[in-house]
Amino acid sequence: MRESTGPTFIGCGSDFASATSVLLGVPFDGTVSFRPGARFAPAQIRMESVGLETYSPYFDADLTDFSLCDLGDLEPPFGNTEKVLQLVQEQMRHVFQHNKKLIMLGGEHLISLPAITEAKRQYDDLVVLHFDAHTDLRSDYLGETLSHATVMRRVWEVLGDGRIWQFGIRSGTREEFYWAKAGRTVLQMHDFTGLGAAIAEIGHRPVYLTIDLDVLDPSVLPGTGTPEAGGVSFPDLITALKAVSTLNIIGSDLVELAPHYDHSGASSAVACKVLRELIIAVSIGL
Amino acid sequence: MRESTGPTFIGCGSDFASATSVLLGVPFDGTVSFRPGARFAPAQIRMESVGLETYSPYFDADLTDFSLCDLGDLEPPFGNTEKVLQLVQEQMRHVFQHNKKLIMLGGEHLISLPAITEAKRQYDDLVVLHFDAHTDLRSDYLGETLSHATVMRRVWEVLGDGRIWQFGIRSGTREEFYWAKAGRTVLQMHDFTGLGAAIAEIGHRPVYLTIDLDVLDPSVLPGTGTPEAGGVSFPDLITALKAVSTLNIIGSDLVELAPHYDHSGASSAVACKVLRELIIAVSIGL
Amino acid sequence: MRESTGPTFIGCGSDFASATSVLLGVPFDGTVSFRPGARFAPAQIRMESVGLETYSPYFDADLTDFSLCDLGDLEPPFGNTEKVLQLVQEQMRHVFQHNKKLIMLGGEHLISLPAITEAKRQYDDLVVLHFDAHTDLRSDYLGETLSHATVMRRVWEVLGDGRIWQFGIRSGTREEFYWAKAGRTVLQMHDFTGLGAAIAEIGHRPVYLTIDLDVLDPSVLPGTGTPEAGGVSFPDLITALKAVSTLNIIGSDLVELAPHYDHSGASSAVACKVLRELIIAVSIGL
Amino acid sequence: MRESTGPTFIGCGSDFASATSVLLGVPFDGTVSFRPGARFAPAQIRMESVGLETYSPYFDADLTDFSLCDLGDLEPPFGNTEKVLQLVQEQMRHVFQHNKKLIMLGGEHLISLPAITEAKRQYDDLVVLHFDAHTDLRSDYLGETLSHATVMRRVWEVLGDGRIWQFGIRSGTREEFYWAKAGRTVLQMHDFTGLGAAIAEIGHRPVYLTIDLDVLDPSVLPGTGTPEAGGVSFPDLITALKAVSTLNIIGSDLVELAPHYDHSGASSAVACKVLRELIIAVSIGL
Amino acid sequence: MRESTGPTFIGCGSDFASATSVLLGVPFDGTVSFRPGARFAPAQIRMESVGLETYSPYFDADLTDFSLCDLGDLEPPFGNTEKVLQLVQEQMRHVFQHNKKLIMLGGEHLISLPAITEAKRQYDDLVVLHFDAHTDLRSDYLGETLSHATVMRRVWEVLGDGRIWQFGIRSGTREEFYWAKAGRTVLQMHDFTGLGAAIAEIGHRPVYLTIDLDVLDPSVLPGTGTPEAGGVSFPDLITALKAVSTLNIIGSDLVELAPHYDHSGASSAVACKVLRELIIAVSIGL
Amino acid sequence: MRESTGPTFIGCGSDFASATSVLLGVPFDGTVSFRPGARFAPAQIRMESVGLETYSPYFDADLTDFSLCDLGDLEPPFGNTEKVLQLVQEQMRHVFQHNKKLIMLGGEHLISLPAITEAKRQYDDLVVLHFDAHTDLRSDYLGETLSHATVMRRVWEVLGDGRIWQFGIRSGTREEFYWAKAGRTVLQMHDFTGLGAAIAEIGHRPVYLTIDLDVLDPSVLPGTGTPEAGGVSFPDLITALKAVSTLNIIGSDLVELAPHYDHSGASSAVACKVLRELIIAVSIGL
Repeated sequence: MRESTGPTFIGCGSDFASATSVLLGVPFDGTVSFRPGARFAPAQIRMESVGLETYSPYFDADLTDFSLCDLGDLEPPFGNTEKVLQLVQEQMRHVFQHNKKLIMLGGEHLISLPAITEAKRQYDDLVVLHFDAHTDLRSDYLGETLSHATVMRRVWEVLGDGRIWQFGIRSGTREEFYWAKAGRTVLQMHDFTGLGAAIAEIGHRPVYLTIDLDVLDPSVLPGTGTPEAGGVSFPDLITALKAVSTLNIIGSDLVELAPHYDHSGASSAVACKVLRELIIAVSIGL
Repeated sequence: MRESTGPTFIGCGSDFASATSVLLGVPFDGTVSFRPGARFAPAQIRMESVGLETYSPYFDADLTDFSLCDLGDLEPPFGNTEKVLQLVQEQMRHVFQHNKKLIMLGGEHLISLPAITEAKRQYDDLVVLHFDAHTDLRSDYLGETLSHATVMRRVWEVLGDGRIWQFGIRSGTREEFYWAKAGRTVLQMHDFTGLGAAIAEIGHRPVYLTIDLDVLDPSVLPGTGTPEAGGVSFPDLITALKAVSTLNIIGSDLVELAPHYDHSGASSAVACKVLRELIIAVSIGL
Repeated sequence: MRESTGPTFIGCGSDFASATSVLLGVPFDGTVSFRPGARFAPAQIRMESVGLETYSPYFDADLTDFSLCDLGDLEPPFGNTEKVLQLVQEQMRHVFQHNKKLIMLGGEHLISLPAITEAKRQYDDLVVLHFDAHTDLRSDYLGETLSHATVMRRVWEVLGDGRIWQFGIRSGTREEFYWAKAGRTVLQMHDFTGLGAAIAEIGHRPVYLTIDLDVLDPSVLPGTGTPEAGGVSFPDLITALKAVSTLNIIGSDLVELAPHYDHSGASSAVACKVLRELIIAVSIGL
Repeated sequence: MRESTGPTFIGCGSDFASATSVLLGVPFDGTVSFRPGARFAPAQIRMESVGLETYSPYFDADLTDFSLCDLGDLEPPFGNTEKVLQLVQEQMRHVFQHNKKLIMLGGEHLISLPAITEAKRQYDDLVVLHFDAHTDLRSDYLGETLSHATVMRRVWEVLGDGRIWQFGIRSGTREEFYWAKAGRTVLQMHDFTGLGAAIAEIGHRPVYLTIDLDVLDPSVLPGTGTPEAGGVSFPDLITALKAVSTLNIIGSDLVELAPHYDHSGASSAVACKVLRELIIAVSIGL
Repeated sequence: MRESTGPTFIGCGSDFASATSVLLGVPFDGTVSFRPGARFAPAQIRMESVGLETYSPYFDADLTDFSLCDLGDLEPPFGNTEKVLQLVQEQMRHVFQHNKKLIMLGGEHLISLPAITEAKRQYDDLVVLHFDAHTDLRSDYLGETLSHATVMRRVWEVLGDGRIWQFGIRSGTREEFYWAKAGRTVLQMHDFTGLGAAIAEIGHRPVYLTIDLDVLDPSVLPGTGTPEAGGVSFPDLITALKAVSTLNIIGSDLVELAPHYDHSGASSAVACKVLRELIIAVSIGL
Repeated sequence: MRESTGPTFIGCGSDFASATSVLLGVPFDGTVSFRPGARFAPAQIRMESVGLETYSPYFDADLTDFSLCDLGDLEPPFGNTEKVLQLVQEQMRHVFQHNKKLIMLGGEHLISLPAITEAKRQYDDLVVLHFDAHTDLRSDYLGETLSHATVMRRVWEVLGDGRIWQFGIRSGTREEFYWAKAGRTVLQMHDFTGLGAAIAEIGHRPVYLTIDLDVLDPSVLPGTGTPEAGGVSFPDLITALKAVSTLNIIGSDLVELAPHYDHSGASSAVACKVLRELIIAVSIGL
């Protein structure tokens, strides 16, 4: 793995051995179909985190209450998608084998595939919670099966029917929506309606939570590759994170911030805060 | 008319003869009082439309379900407002005489005047629905009667009292508000309250729907000439479009996107999606 | 004081003697901890105010209904915080001694301290209303006691327990939140819940109202030094201003717009409109 | 004329009666063919001039050595080009009749036409120096004879053959270049070669100097409507201004800064400095 | 090939059969190591070309003097580099087999590899002229042999020693510079010194000219993935293009404009003009 | 000193003990008179340095040829200028006492004062080379003696007449220029003319080299607080750095990059490269 060239995220100063949760950056955006730039998210988020407090008034918890380790970034070879996925999966194995909780920081959404694939190896009854604007259920994109636009279809191939809950979805082809509704996934359009029921149904099963930041409305986070109007608000997302913090989340990721597209810095600031809350949500049950 | 120099909007590949609805760009912003740039909207929207799906989950309809023709752009001579309006009106006549539904893409709001004027010639009991942040009811602006700040006053001169319904309005002079409330128009401040009643009252009459994109809150669409805080949300606008899709909309326009003012591209992406929904709302009753 | 080098804010053309409310710019941002640039707010707001109407449909009132004087800007010596505060306090004395209502335009939040200090000298039973994303209750920041991150702690030292009502707060250290809740201030997280009760309790006492524009959600106002997701909406803020307009507001300020961080101009446009409403809220009871 | 709503340019604090040179802003860009926004130049230049010194090390002269008056801005009615030109011409008459030297600040290039037309009425043997990237010699643009792309053709109709010297030209149609070279104007491509000879030939005749800021290379001034690579450097322009300062310049203008297109502010800063040097070049012979 | 979704470049309205030179866009940037975004160059350049004249005063020639065809864009599958290269090579075969001159518009620099590979099949004594800031001679980049940082090394493998002339180079590893100087390529640092000698040596051999726009100084073209200070000026590049227009250029490309990184639009405008001159330089000898 | 929260600059991975040259960031901009933001330079430069090669073709040297240590950043308390200067001076003492060569990374220009003051204590016959657009010789600025606009006047008070050589200067008050020319400093306007003579005269004396990045033309580096047209080119600066690399430079700094003002990133990229060359110029004689 790459020698860390960036600062650590605030409050994540533990070493790997003593940490219960670990942060890993994957600055890869090689299959992005529209506007690339998610590769810059991990460095930008860490740099901007100096403007953030470690204390969450939402959880009444502080990052310094936990043992958190920031592993730095993988160094993905651009142009070779399969090798990137392999590198990610190796890291995940390392993390899961040591019983650490994972918080992966994209980069683009395709990186969820190797993480979930590995999580499934470790936790057989794994389910996935997916917050996103897009279905990501295409069979292929321009002939390619490995793409940020097909990632949840690939994940479904790993997990099977009824193991994926999707929230906030508002963009896709007609075929994707109909395919999902035919029982492949549990798909909630626009918002988090039904999240409570999902949580009840999931129970104690291990959960991988993947958050595409474009689930947020573009007014809140314009700095993403494919902004989709009609998204959830920041308080909606916080409420959802508080709800899922009761689950047994064994891994999670936060993807698709493209910081260069928002010169105001607000998108990066929002992503920093979502990351703080996500870390707490994942770690708080420990 | 100008040889089309831009791509067509996604899903609008029919020819004029077979199309039921036609898209026409009018890249004119010559009377804009504050920040110009709406002239760049048609080209930007078409270029950015590659990032949009043709399927609308709101209507459960797809642009490819319809026969849509993108006529490209008029080439307005800047500095000669009257000639621009004349060019627009000639195009409108062509469109209306062939019983096509019009979706005009501005450019600035003054271009609604020749379109409505011509629609009134064709459909005598025409009414107008107006979604906007601004009253646009000034008698003149710095002495000029033809301005994007006076366009609805001019439209009123064409249609008379009680034929214009205005929604989302939150900026104007005291005189404009009082003049409207004296029975000239039906003016709803801030939002779409009363739209259902308006739809009932309009009934089967032919409708021209003019949407100034600054009706949206600037958080959703900062890329406009005169952003006005306190606007409607994107879901509010979609709900309104679904409601009016039951009406007999014979013409419509979408104006005042100034894409250069939003470097994140989110404003253009929002406008693309509103245009998709508008095209469907206009075409779905056919 | 500096020779005014900027235009006046729209509708503020009275001279000092005849004015009932006065506007003063303080383009200082020397203690800003994260992103500076609030110094540019007064000039930008005045320049952009040409795009604003003088009429408020919220209050059904017009700036031209009042006698308003724009004093222009102080010229703060950067690098010498104490001298800046002294200059501000001298101006405040001048304003309060002539029984004018103050609307101060920042600049950063620390400038509230000399204004409130002077207001307290003039009005002994002064209370403070504080709209902000941040607690601003640190004892010190990197060892400095005079900072925009400590300003409300310093104000508390002037006023004592129970004289400060804070609304919209969503960022701070755990210590700050706990200190406030121990009875030092009345702190409402996230929004304006409880404002009605506060207004009732304040009654006829003289009020200083300080508005840090980052109380607004960053989607509405990204152009600020430390944007904090989860803020209030523009209509929320307008509703609050209408509510407090019934109070005896003797001074107020509007701080922390950093216009260069929002190239769309939407943040400046929002600030212009908030300033218009604030001026009316302060002046309407006269 | 419009009540001045902007600050004066630094060092221009004299009143009209005592001034020998006067500055007038004309924030009009209604005939701009590509990217508008020159209307914002006068206000931006005045606001940014606070970052400029009044002393010119190039001339070893200071703006405060002269009696300079900033008249503020005209308020052009957008959409009515002819009326705008008439307003400008009336102001020019006022200035020239009082034997003041004019420095007009655009706005777009068409505003040179009424200024030169009026100058010709006052000074019959007037010649014109024209620094620009573009020939501006079209007979018409999209059928319009009044356009920033036709302005020097119109000026030629006022002055006749051999009275216009053009420098820095590098863009136009083949027809424009050939027409110019047929003896209509003296056209120097790319740079200021031949300026010395021109100055010698002009001798004591009254001169109107019009500077389109796009004569500068876009690396120096990207903030203009139609940037044209291959332009002159800033020192080239300063050298030219020093050379022409020996002439009897009775009027001048500086046009086509579009400040919103350069968020770095460098274009506005360059324009401020060129304006300082232009004011001195015009005024120094008095 | 993708249905053309963009406008044609100005003056390129001929069909393939009658054209002597053809323009092809390849919006691919999948191996870019630092800042991606070159994928947006073809669409942006075509859209911005409306602000350009068809006449070149440098060549005294007009695009309309030639028969030029704009084939539109390939649609590269992101994430599968080898397939992209194969798609490009197929197109090149088509173009070269019909004896058309190629002007390829990137996208990133790796796309030169399949074009040159195919050109070498068609023209055995092919030589390459390479204008660039970077050596692009790495053996691999992070283990990948197909990368925009290795493209000229791969080209060397196709052509062998002494067949590549490199100009303007100013960035690379020590190893790359030393490897080149050991006789692999003819490498001129910083500028075009020696271009005349190269042209003489090349003589009548067929030439492929590849221009990485970052050969220009970042002041002229900041909108590129890896800006490198110390580059050539625009007039330098024009002079070089005029010099090489005497050669038998059978193919060429213009790569690495990343338009989103320059919001002023100046970089895109420069690229448009370089493309005009490149098309003429390639076509003028016919 | 602050725990380093940023990455190290490329090639600076040695520890303090083994390093011969050390890099220290001082993210302070508290006395900046016009546009602040230099505080963000150290973090931005380190983050962007991943896009830079360690090899300099100008010096034919590589950063990895030297033993370089990046100490990270000081954490200056904003609002307390004197304390900041004291913190810097303490660090300098540490560096100079260990006979390390200093490369300080601003932040604003005032930080040169404590560094030079301390250098003078260590090296009595110290001279200063000053590359800048501004004289920085004001006696005070708005009454303040400690300001980035007065820093070289303060340095003169430390060193006395004839110990400061200034190059590239093109902005200041008349008084400053005349004061300098009266023998206080050796001031070269606009460029590096006379640098060779200065080097000869300096001989073996210890040198502190302070580089305000605004010495570069704004076309090359628009991202600075007060851009001044007419500056030196990048090759000019490199040539100067090569020339001074023969001197005994014991300390140096690079100040006044304000990265947020150049969204293209070109300014930061230029600063990275200048820093690489500066590090080599300082270290190469060892």
